Amino acid sequence: MEQTPLFGRVALIGMGLIGGSLALALRQHGLVGRLVGADHNPDHVTQALALGLVDEAGTDLGLAVRGCDLVVLATPVGTFAELAATIAPHCMPGAIVSDVGSVKELVLREIAPRLPPGVHLVPAHPIAGTEHSGPAAGFATLFQGRWCILTPAADTDPSAVERVRALWLRVGSMVEVMTAEHHDRVLAITSHLPHLIAYTIVDTAVGLEESTQSEVIKFSASGFRDFTRIAASDPIMWRDIFLNNREAVLEILQRFTEDLTALQRAIRRGEGDTLQEVFTRTRGIRRGIIDAKQA
Amino acid sequence: MEQTPLFGRVALIGMGLIGGSLALALRQHGLVGRLVGADHNPDHVTQALALGLVDEAGTDLGLAVRGCDLVVLATPVGTFAELAATIAPHCMPGAIVSDVGSVKELVLREIAPRLPPGVHLVPAHPIAGTEHSGPAAGFATLFQGRWCILTPAADTDPSAVERVRALWLRVGSMVEVMTAEHHDRVLAITSHLPHLIAYTIVDTAVGLEESTQSEVIKFSASGFRDFTRIAASDPIMWRDIFLNNREAVLEILQRFTEDLTALQRAIRRGEGDTLQEVFTRTRGIRRGIIDAKQA
Repeated sequence: MEQTPLFGRVALIGMGLIGGSLALALRQHGLVGRLVGADHNPDHVTQALALGLVDEAGTDLGLAVRGCDLVVLATPVGTFAELAATIAPHCMPGAIVSDVGSVKELVLREIAPRLPPGVHLVPAHPIAGTEHSGPAAGFATLFQGRWCILTPAADTDPSAVERVRALWLRVGSMVEVMTAEHHDRVLAITSHLPHLIAYTIVDTAVGLEESTQSEVIKFSASGFRDFTRIAASDPIMWRDIFLNNREAVLEILQRFTEDLTALQRAIRRGEGDTLQEVFTRTRGIRRGIIDAKQA
Repeated sequence: MEQTPLFGRVALIGMGLIGGSLALALRQHGLVGRLVGADHNPDHVTQALALGLVDEAGTDLGLAVRGCDLVVLATPVGTFAELAATIAPHCMPGAIVSDVGSVKELVLREIAPRLPPGVHLVPAHPIAGTEHSGPAAGFATLFQGRWCILTPAADTDPSAVERVRALWLRVGSMVEVMTAEHHDRVLAITSHLPHLIAYTIVDTAVGLEESTQSEVIKFSASGFRDFTRIAASDPIMWRDIFLNNREAVLEILQRFTEDLTALQRAIRRGEGDTLQEVFTRTRGIRRGIIDAKQA
């Protein structure tokens, strides 16, 4: 449905799954006057234009952000420092810079000091995605019914935060505000560790002799399949996440390893009661997710 | 569609998700003359009758198998030894005993020696299921397009194997025959390890302070959610699987732990190339699953 535009001119840097989906959602809901796409990859620019994701697009990031009242970075988080330096001289006074990265302390650390005074930084993380990548993977409803976490610094202009909140609400998300540090610890368990483990188990299968591998594929429906979907996510994006949320990931990984070792011991010693107890209490978390309508 | 019955009288022992689904599928395809359900749990018997899963049902297993040309065990594998002893004196000469258990060396070891001569043991494992349990969780199409693995001993009457194969083909499955030992090694990686890991990570989340737990539920869509679905599977069934496929599970778990430790090291040392390389090659397995139409 058409709504009053929230922003006059918006630049989306990065035309991947999230950037493309956000473009479609912003246009579908009439939230922007003019939408500019930018991507270092000329193929993505061509695809974004061909798919009608944006009104105009190019590979010149400085040009893209000029005159924009909102700039959203939707590239792997490892690019943020360099991107911030590139766009900073071209940002309009009063503009809002946001992002959709999965690690947030890094955003305050790397982007904030590079922006000129009077430009507002409002980091955002929409908890949504699929295992597919690239401009063609985007769809307008990706954010509907999903959470978006904002992690502004304490001294950020509240009206800038409100405008970014309004944007995510209007594309159908629920919005929560928390500190970047807290975000990074929560996501380490809900997202980063699950991805690390999925990548690992699929790689363990890759390491098996070739005859077994074809059987792993054949009989994947028994549990393995779900891990392969997660482990098909964008490699660069995930490399950057692990490099930039190192401490929180290593801490939760340590707890996971302890818990796994305890189960391994129970299996080796044939302690059925321990296994049954763990397998029973994990059902409660699933019920919580179903009750919270996130299943 | 109605087909010629393959069996005159069939007993299904265990009216859970798999037993209930098999009952519905057998009846829908007209594969049995008369279908008898049996379950130690009187509530399951009542439900099975109320849901119309079987023609008759009761808690007396000996009575259930009498006069049957096929008996299928669909209970947790830990019950198999006792069940075999209970039904053996009541099995009709020439009858086929089968099962749907997720561990297969155990079937040959525990069931075969307890059956009278002239009764044929044809172990089966349909690679299908959901995270739901109980008679009401069953549905007739559960096995369609899914693999079913048969693991008969080398000296089993080939015509008995063919009849069980025909049954699974007619309910829509694809059938493969392999040794029980090979089955148990393949399933350790495709099913048992994924479940163990999913149970572990969900239990790691259970161990976090309560405030974080509610956030884990809220933001579960970022990867964790898929693990909770797997970790909501039946606790007794899974306890029995781990206790009875111990060696294969511990061996693959050891490989997994090595691979996880290598990734942990790469994260700690900031080795992005290693991470990217692993995350890239795991995509190949996903493509294989999609190509094999098991996605």
